[in-house]
Amino acid sequence: MNNLAPPALYALILAGGSGTRLWPLSRQFFPKQFMALGAQDSLLDATVKRLQPQVAQANTWVITSPDNATGAGFAQLQGLNLLLEPCARNTAPAVAAAAALLADHFNDPLMAVLPADHDIKDVGAFHAALQTAMQAAVGGKLVTFGLQPTHAETGYGYIESATAEGADEGAIRPVARFIEKPDAATAEGFIKAGNYYWNSGMFVFRASAFLAEVERHAPEITAVLTKLRAAPDVENFKALVKEHFAAMPNISIDYAVMEKSSNVVVVPVSMGWSDIGSWDAVHDLFNKDANGNAVQTAPNAAPVLIDATDNLIVSQGGRLIAAVGVENLEIIDTPDALLVCQRGMGQHVKKVVDELKVRGGETHLIHRTVRRPWGSYTVLEDNASGYKLKRIEVTPGGRLSLQSHKHRSEHWVVVAGQATVTCDADVRTLQPGQSTYIPLGAKHRLENMGTEPVQLIEVQVGDYLGEDDIVRYEDVYGRS
Amino acid sequence: MNNLAPPALYALILAGGSGTRLWPLSRQFFPKQFMALGAQDSLLDATVKRLQPQVAQANTWVITSPDNATGAGFAQLQGLNLLLEPCARNTAPAVAAAAALLADHFNDPLMAVLPADHDIKDVGAFHAALQTAMQAAVGGKLVTFGLQPTHAETGYGYIESATAEGADEGAIRPVARFIEKPDAATAEGFIKAGNYYWNSGMFVFRASAFLAEVERHAPEITAVLTKLRAAPDVENFKALVKEHFAAMPNISIDYAVMEKSSNVVVVPVSMGWSDIGSWDAVHDLFNKDANGNAVQTAPNAAPVLIDATDNLIVSQGGRLIAAVGVENLEIIDTPDALLVCQRGMGQHVKKVVDELKVRGGETHLIHRTVRRPWGSYTVLEDNASGYKLKRIEVTPGGRLSLQSHKHRSEHWVVVAGQATVTCDADVRTLQPGQSTYIPLGAKHRLENMGTEPVQLIEVQVGDYLGEDDIVRYEDVYGRS
Repeated sequence: MNNLAPPALYALILAGGSGTRLWPLSRQFFPKQFMALGAQDSLLDATVKRLQPQVAQANTWVITSPDNATGAGFAQLQGLNLLLEPCARNTAPAVAAAAALLADHFNDPLMAVLPADHDIKDVGAFHAALQTAMQAAVGGKLVTFGLQPTHAETGYGYIESATAEGADEGAIRPVARFIEKPDAATAEGFIKAGNYYWNSGMFVFRASAFLAEVERHAPEITAVLTKLRAAPDVENFKALVKEHFAAMPNISIDYAVMEKSSNVVVVPVSMGWSDIGSWDAVHDLFNKDANGNAVQTAPNAAPVLIDATDNLIVSQGGRLIAAVGVENLEIIDTPDALLVCQRGMGQHVKKVVDELKVRGGETHLIHRTVRRPWGSYTVLEDNASGYKLKRIEVTPGGRLSLQSHKHRSEHWVVVAGQATVTCDADVRTLQPGQSTYIPLGAKHRLENMGTEPVQLIEVQVGDYLGEDDIVRYEDVYGRS
Repeated sequence: MNNLAPPALYALILAGGSGTRLWPLSRQFFPKQFMALGAQDSLLDATVKRLQPQVAQANTWVITSPDNATGAGFAQLQGLNLLLEPCARNTAPAVAAAAALLADHFNDPLMAVLPADHDIKDVGAFHAALQTAMQAAVGGKLVTFGLQPTHAETGYGYIESATAEGADEGAIRPVARFIEKPDAATAEGFIKAGNYYWNSGMFVFRASAFLAEVERHAPEITAVLTKLRAAPDVENFKALVKEHFAAMPNISIDYAVMEKSSNVVVVPVSMGWSDIGSWDAVHDLFNKDANGNAVQTAPNAAPVLIDATDNLIVSQGGRLIAAVGVENLEIIDTPDALLVCQRGMGQHVKKVVDELKVRGGETHLIHRTVRRPWGSYTVLEDNASGYKLKRIEVTPGGRLSLQSHKHRSEHWVVVAGQATVTCDADVRTLQPGQSTYIPLGAKHRLENMGTEPVQLIEVQVGDYLGEDDIVRYEDVYGRS
């Protein structure tokens, strides 16, 4: 090895999650990694940027779901390499498939595996740890990042290092064992012992080194990988993933490989890490004002706070929020749902989502604004009283599918940009203030051939107004 | 007097208030009296019904503002006798003007003066007290209702009766004095003494008896009354009120007359009264579930409550509310504003309204849905980005003014009912699913000549989209 150039460092970002712990800001089809929390960048964007310059964007791969890729994540994923998992199978199959792709078609690089939805405040420490991890990975080790615990957290798994004393950042230590979420007393013991670290879910290894351990400890994954590795090129590989991925077992990387392998080391690191696993974590993360309140709203919708202290107030959609005499609340406001949660109870938000699933509505699935590859639509009214009202935004170059509806006609009023409208044989470009009518059954298409975003108001009228009343004839984004 | 039929009992309901203490449900142009709080009826409706059968609806007068009469109160005020006060001058001028009207044109009846926005749980006790009060009023007394205090409240004024011992419902006692809001120690003393009652702001007297005391103690009011009393009939009287009312002093009935008159008696009564002066009072009033939560939402928008106790949750507009781990909160949700208030801090909501006035927006003035004599409109989007979106509802028989706009064109899509549209020389009736376009400057009118409510979606496009861009040519509701 010493005479060869060191292997390149690639990144695999795991962005398949459909998180609901940050409901109502996160939804099943708008998971946490695509959210911006008190920052310009989304968590995914931040994860990509944080890797630079050590990992070039050209060497950054993201594995995610087709729903995320054409929906919530579409814009953010432009310019990144995408591997789509056609169904959710937890982390081990996702990482294994990506490792096979990189081993076979990208010269078996080192790969840093990172969740898309964590926050790291100390980027310097992250880079130093990455550097240390690469040294061990070049030598064939599977390297985990062991986060120096700041308290006896019972919500995370732990990694015990084989060396009996603590800290010592920059060291590389053999792993004695992985421990699932401990009880409070056990966690206290870990903190006192000093050689226990939070399991961050971040790894560095050479693709082939990981695949060797998969073969050893998870042969049912390797069986599927063998089919994928018959691919002569990347496009074929992706197609085979689409075909065979469902046959993978549903299993985490820790459980399938890390806990069983004797080839794992841990790099201890303190880097201001948070998995942002609840609103309580967001509450801790945000900057506070003099009264301890953390606020994220539109600039023209600053909340009115009267005798209010130590609250987190997040508002999407511009409603005015007033808080009087309250403390330690998390008030999360969106156009169709509001959460008011006592600080420290954030982990129970998943019970809300469970209840919403039982009720069968859409509030846990999607936002009022739904992202599409061509732009987005926002449901403004949906009263089941014979009509539905939407605002549709089409980005420059965006093109909806050529489609028709069996149960509704549509009135379109353009309010911004230049909208090119096909309606059967007729093609016209409408200016702001102009309108058109799409009769029931007409084959129609909306596109933006201009340079400014198109906005239009759509009034649907019909006896059935579900999103599934759509026949697609052509679609530039490959949707069926 | 014994040989004559007793004078009739009329009611004067004071509905001029523009309350903001129940913001965000109440707004300056949607005051509390027109709100329904945990009931079918609005507080005004309930006040009218509570008087029956002792006061026939034909003998019920309401004094309110022109804004209320054509806006928030329009539908509720149909069938009641209206006296409009063209400007706010507190209670003394309002009651005096009404007393003059009744004395001169309705045979000088007894009149019960009642705020429009109080709640009374024990209607039987109210009727009994009314009966007792009438006896004294027939004899020429000004009668106040003295509410038996349930605690040492510092937020109300008190009435001291001349008799040294308490309770004794059904008695009629001379008033020793009126006391403004006391401090806590003084209030405690009142409760111990037993002959102190909360001043309810309800009165019964003969119109002429009240006018005599006004003449004695508030000659500046009588000076204006003299002008009104020149009216030969009711319509003329109303016109003179419109002309001269602004000359009235701004003064309360207590301060102008009751505190000064030696002709005042008090009828003690316990009747489950509340002035609903804050969300805390509403919180007390509502029925609670097993966890102490009081909820008022649309049936299809029941909140999700996880470990939540003793909260008040009111939602207008159908958004989903989830509350996790919170207690003793008041969560009041409307389409454009949300209040989260700690129980017990309700009186500080006025500070929120003060702040909103300083900011200069509309959130303290109007709701998203604004009532008009012809129906209502709801602003769905108002983004200052060149367009504005409204849903317009026109009740059967409703007719908007013939109007034009200088800065905007309008697209109308009818989604329910049959809308008759005048646009310059063209008059057409549109069915659901049909649309029309009102060019900039066109003289147009929308009306509902059918029997079902009309709903239409309006998309306004223009360089200025304020409500004041309107030229009215004809209006059946007499608006200029």
